[in-house]
Amino acid sequence: MRILLLNVNTTESMTAGSAEVAQRVAGGDTTLIPLTPLFGAESVEGNFESLLSAVAVMDRVATYPGTFDAIVLAGFGEHGREGLQEIVEVPVVDITEAAVMGALLLGRTYSVVTMHDRSVPLIEDRLKLAGLLERCASIRAAGLSVLETRADSMPQTMRAIAAEARRAVQEDRAEVICLGCAGLSGLREYVEKECGVPVVDGVEMAVSLAESLVRLGHRTSKVRTHSAPPRKRVIGWPITSIAAAPHAASAADVRAGSIP
Amino acid sequence: MRILLLNVNTTESMTAGSAEVAQRVAGGDTTLIPLTPLFGAESVEGNFESLLSAVAVMDRVATYPGTFDAIVLAGFGEHGREGLQEIVEVPVVDITEAAVMGALLLGRTYSVVTMHDRSVPLIEDRLKLAGLLERCASIRAAGLSVLETRADSMPQTMRAIAAEARRAVQEDRAEVICLGCAGLSGLREYVEKECGVPVVDGVEMAVSLAESLVRLGHRTSKVRTHSAPPRKRVIGWPITSIAAAPHAASAADVRAGSIP
Amino acid sequence: MRILLLNVNTTESMTAGSAEVAQRVAGGDTTLIPLTPLFGAESVEGNFESLLSAVAVMDRVATYPGTFDAIVLAGFGEHGREGLQEIVEVPVVDITEAAVMGALLLGRTYSVVTMHDRSVPLIEDRLKLAGLLERCASIRAAGLSVLETRADSMPQTMRAIAAEARRAVQEDRAEVICLGCAGLSGLREYVEKECGVPVVDGVEMAVSLAESLVRLGHRTSKVRTHSAPPRKRVIGWPITSIAAAPHAASAADVRAGSIP
Amino acid sequence: MRILLLNVNTTESMTAGSAEVAQRVAGGDTTLIPLTPLFGAESVEGNFESLLSAVAVMDRVATYPGTFDAIVLAGFGEHGREGLQEIVEVPVVDITEAAVMGALLLGRTYSVVTMHDRSVPLIEDRLKLAGLLERCASIRAAGLSVLETRADSMPQTMRAIAAEARRAVQEDRAEVICLGCAGLSGLREYVEKECGVPVVDGVEMAVSLAESLVRLGHRTSKVRTHSAPPRKRVIGWPITSIAAAPHAASAADVRAGSIP
Amino acid sequence: MRILLLNVNTTESMTAGSAEVAQRVAGGDTTLIPLTPLFGAESVEGNFESLLSAVAVMDRVATYPGTFDAIVLAGFGEHGREGLQEIVEVPVVDITEAAVMGALLLGRTYSVVTMHDRSVPLIEDRLKLAGLLERCASIRAAGLSVLETRADSMPQTMRAIAAEARRAVQEDRAEVICLGCAGLSGLREYVEKECGVPVVDGVEMAVSLAESLVRLGHRTSKVRTHSAPPRKRVIGWPITSIAAAPHAASAADVRAGSIP
Amino acid sequence: MRILLLNVNTTESMTAGSAEVAQRVAGGDTTLIPLTPLFGAESVEGNFESLLSAVAVMDRVATYPGTFDAIVLAGFGEHGREGLQEIVEVPVVDITEAAVMGALLLGRTYSVVTMHDRSVPLIEDRLKLAGLLERCASIRAAGLSVLETRADSMPQTMRAIAAEARRAVQEDRAEVICLGCAGLSGLREYVEKECGVPVVDGVEMAVSLAESLVRLGHRTSKVRTHSAPPRKRVIGWPITSIAAAPHAASAADVRAGSIP
Repeated sequence: MRILLLNVNTTESMTAGSAEVAQRVAGGDTTLIPLTPLFGAESVEGNFESLLSAVAVMDRVATYPGTFDAIVLAGFGEHGREGLQEIVEVPVVDITEAAVMGALLLGRTYSVVTMHDRSVPLIEDRLKLAGLLERCASIRAAGLSVLETRADSMPQTMRAIAAEARRAVQEDRAEVICLGCAGLSGLREYVEKECGVPVVDGVEMAVSLAESLVRLGHRTSKVRTHSAPPRKRVIGWPITSIAAAPHAASAADVRAGSIP
Repeated sequence: MRILLLNVNTTESMTAGSAEVAQRVAGGDTTLIPLTPLFGAESVEGNFESLLSAVAVMDRVATYPGTFDAIVLAGFGEHGREGLQEIVEVPVVDITEAAVMGALLLGRTYSVVTMHDRSVPLIEDRLKLAGLLERCASIRAAGLSVLETRADSMPQTMRAIAAEARRAVQEDRAEVICLGCAGLSGLREYVEKECGVPVVDGVEMAVSLAESLVRLGHRTSKVRTHSAPPRKRVIGWPITSIAAAPHAASAADVRAGSIP
Repeated sequence: MRILLLNVNTTESMTAGSAEVAQRVAGGDTTLIPLTPLFGAESVEGNFESLLSAVAVMDRVATYPGTFDAIVLAGFGEHGREGLQEIVEVPVVDITEAAVMGALLLGRTYSVVTMHDRSVPLIEDRLKLAGLLERCASIRAAGLSVLETRADSMPQTMRAIAAEARRAVQEDRAEVICLGCAGLSGLREYVEKECGVPVVDGVEMAVSLAESLVRLGHRTSKVRTHSAPPRKRVIGWPITSIAAAPHAASAADVRAGSIP
Repeated sequence: MRILLLNVNTTESMTAGSAEVAQRVAGGDTTLIPLTPLFGAESVEGNFESLLSAVAVMDRVATYPGTFDAIVLAGFGEHGREGLQEIVEVPVVDITEAAVMGALLLGRTYSVVTMHDRSVPLIEDRLKLAGLLERCASIRAAGLSVLETRADSMPQTMRAIAAEARRAVQEDRAEVICLGCAGLSGLREYVEKECGVPVVDGVEMAVSLAESLVRLGHRTSKVRTHSAPPRKRVIGWPITSIAAAPHAASAADVRAGSIP
Repeated sequence: MRILLLNVNTTESMTAGSAEVAQRVAGGDTTLIPLTPLFGAESVEGNFESLLSAVAVMDRVATYPGTFDAIVLAGFGEHGREGLQEIVEVPVVDITEAAVMGALLLGRTYSVVTMHDRSVPLIEDRLKLAGLLERCASIRAAGLSVLETRADSMPQTMRAIAAEARRAVQEDRAEVICLGCAGLSGLREYVEKECGVPVVDGVEMAVSLAESLVRLGHRTSKVRTHSAPPRKRVIGWPITSIAAAPHAASAADVRAGSIP
Repeated sequence: MRILLLNVNTTESMTAGSAEVAQRVAGGDTTLIPLTPLFGAESVEGNFESLLSAVAVMDRVATYPGTFDAIVLAGFGEHGREGLQEIVEVPVVDITEAAVMGALLLGRTYSVVTMHDRSVPLIEDRLKLAGLLERCASIRAAGLSVLETRADSMPQTMRAIAAEARRAVQEDRAEVICLGCAGLSGLREYVEKECGVPVVDGVEMAVSLAESLVRLGHRTSKVRTHSAPPRKRVIGWPITSIAAAPHAASAADVRAGSIP
């Protein structure tokens, strides 16, 4: 089977990192197709960036020329899963929900440990809408930016994440930890050793769930919420069809310059 | 004061309709600036369209050259309010939340009456995240598309909405009705007469709330969730800065063509 | 328009204080009519006093000889709003709910900072019934009595309230603060400066909301909960119609003297 | 032991009816002291009347000259329990909560069947604040006024209540019925036969619970919420101390006469 | 009346301890019949032991040769109440729920103080299913095993429980304490003195509630959830009918020996 | 890997039925070991039978002589998962939770369709404790007994289940259906065709989830709730070690014979 693995930010090395973790757990008959959005932020840590990533991810899927059997959305706490579910028929698995489902199977309560405080409200929102918040002990941030998951800063990041995981276990009574950022994929073994409870990697779990759904022959319910959008005039869609070489565009300042 | 009134779809006549209602209730010192997104769907009735509209609305605000004191987001149940709150400092009032706040002040329970069944889950999601769902008696759809709020189909639309409002009052025990679509702005008097309970128009209420917040000198809290996005590389932002004449693009089919 | 501004306690200076704040934000065409109950406690900080104030406020309104377009109930966390909504048809805005609605528009979470620990359960009850508790980060008390909002003790009170507001921001992750006592009206600017997040003054917000509702032509829903009480025998109502000069009565000890 | 049995309305025959039911279940060493408020409505079916009754009940207790060991508050869904808990130290048992506790011990879900639609929101509010709403299947009204519990209209009332109880069992899956009005005390046997599930009479259950608490030596917690009101100036309290012969006062029209 | 008092563990001295407390509060016409399960753990502190105790308790009741009018299930937080309600028709009162109902009548919030951390999730589960968790301030464990309620370790146990109760009052704002273990029955007076708030003993309260229900002529609703199991083949029931002298069996190691 | 597939009732043909479904979806390297409890009811449809099955299942696992890598608990809505998690270290997947997780990945809302009304409260309890109830549209019963899933009555059963599934989709707005009984395994394709939405078979989903967890190297968190029971005296455990040939025992009448 063919699974699209969608990074939510525009940093190719992070796409590669998630793909490496995914490949390690994927079944022998699974082909993983890692995709990076063609526009958006180099890391996603807030609503502006997350909404932009949701559209960039949908754009990437809508313009992907090949066939596929499932999608894994590899952004922890980001918007976009429901939109994808409308425009494709194959299963879409968000690593946020996948991680939590894994955690619910392994312990009574779970905590999410993420990089930056800005991601906490987004993760909370996603889990509230997913109806998966009730057994959540806490959502903790290590006070780091997503970009610090890159290779050179990884040692400090690992220590900070593990320390936060320990606090979740000791202070919030978490029995399982979810790694709350796709960039943390691969740290499972280390954090487990440090905090003494099972640690769930959303990318691993999502790939495995996507495989399960495909093998069992499941598809997204199209009866109501996720039915295909009715045909209507949509200006400028897909975004990249109208954009002149978005890859070449430079960083933008997202603050409106004109507020009194 | 200057208030940006943001339509969420690309239908100019709907922007004009909302603006007309807004103008009728705005204070003498208020200048309303109606804006239509430069890309996106001609009506918004699902997650794909709503996420796209959120980005289109942020794009419109980010590239708006003038100054303003508040934003009214005139899409009922659409994404985007939190993103706007990050990129501007002035108050942002979503008509969904404004309508419900008005309803809560007027009766014990409220129902939302919207056009199409596809909008119901989105409205429910917005109100759940806003923490305003508890006194909701029901969210009902009249089985119409948003485009049927245009002038020629308005008579039938009015009757269908009023009928649904009556059902909400009689069967769901709603004490107040919220008009669940910006396109329904202007029907308040008619629906009130038909269903016998107060009817809240989100555009009216949002403009009035925005004026209140501005007059009282309030601004969005920047301490955590809605703080400005950190400066980082954002490819292709604003969208319209990289797009070649999006207005000229034709309608797209949003279904990925390649699903097996 | 004419708005009755109802203090909930019998301290005239507090009525005047609220009126001063209200006047500052009221529109040019608004006449504020401050009213003090003719019986009840000099400050309201518990259920006994609050229930008594609810009746005293209804009594004051029922015997008020003039016309009016809205009522602002200026007690934070007190009983009585629903009773007023039954006996009048114009909008009734409770400062508790008004403050929270303002807060919800400005940040993701809010805390209430009130004077005395006794008020905390009452505020919690009011917000639970109003369905507005979900985004509440905390309700904190500064360990002061309501009477310490009077002029001579104001400097210490201001410092204590600001300190508690800072704790709410730092420890409870509040993004907006609501001043949880009508007697704190006027401290907004000071507390905002001290705690770094928007501060909502319920009196300001309630007056503005009442004006909005009146301008938009709204009235309380009379379809069920707030319909007028059926005519029936009510002994001793209004209270003041049967009372001999309540103003002259002296302070009472509210403890039943006879419990074994 | 001596238990005050407080009616919430001013109809002496209803006080007598509750007392009769209470007497039937009270232990041999229990003396019941039925009390009727000296002012207020002849029946309580809404917020205005309920708040007034709360004060009238507190007034009756505060001026009661004898000793007592517990209070039963015999109004279903009325305000006042918390106020009483502040001004006395002995246990206060509200028949609303007592009935529901009895129901929770006998079946998985319960419904309340009350007389009039106006009482439904009040009952819901009381149970929400009491944290006892979760296993509630429904709160149903038979479309009757409380005064129809008087002897001459009792036959029709009985049939209407039993019919509503049957609907609760069949349509709402209630496993136990609570009689939702003190005036219905005494109908237990009849309604049980008609609807086939256990029926809980709040007066019976509250008297029995009050006896239990007294026998076990329990008193209301005074540590925070229900601590005695601090001594302060309370004008016009007790109400009846300042009122000229409230019993002689005639029925009042509770609608403010001056609303435009 | 005759009340079966069911211990949930196989330690006879704990059965005797509960019986002593129960006897002290039982009415003159009440005969208490203390029963100890014929198999199961010597103390119950987790799901394995609790599920086993549920069956052992049902077995004990099913084979009890005499008549009885009610059952008190004297295990705090254990499984089994619903099973008993299916196989008998008389009221079944679980001390967990009884304690909390008592607490709800005495204060706004309650905490449970139990012996061991392992019991906390079970108590939380029972109260969640009972719909009685909303006013719970905390469930705290003193870090002791249930067996430390036996006579020789009682002095240290008392101090530890009282210390935890004080923390619940001061840190969690509990207004009432529930003793969260049948083995703690009898400590009420001591803990009340130490923590300054009312303390509810579940055994006391359950016996009193069971007496109330019997006196009022109540029986478990048999309409749906607790209806008698349909006649069907049940192998090996009652357990003790097929077991060879279970009392003689020796302690078992409950860990499966074969996990890789 | 080796997965124990535990039936919860004592009907061998049902064990075989579940095993057949499980085998169809299991991976090539998975060995399924179907086990039938040695005592308990021939079908489980209530609390008495469910608690008994929980112990019988734990007994079967505790005495199973071989090694295994995971357990699938194949009873929909039955007790026992937490107990198993304490006594083994490998993952334990309950088909109830597995089915719902599958459903949550495929649609916004789900309904469970089960055989008998008696199972509805048990399923609701399990999902409430699992924190998976929020997106549940309904739990419906087809009015059949579990034993009617046997071959000869299957045609009528299939029609009844499909009809109920259609009602869930049309009346309750379910977007996915969960087959709410292990005995229904194998009906997925038929019911999907009849009701038009995805149907999740808990046995299929649980086997797949168990395989995922094992492949990812996950084990149950042992930090608190599911830690191994402390060594203590447990009389009569395992049950079958003390029972004389339970298989030979005849059907028992579970009603206590002596209730007045």
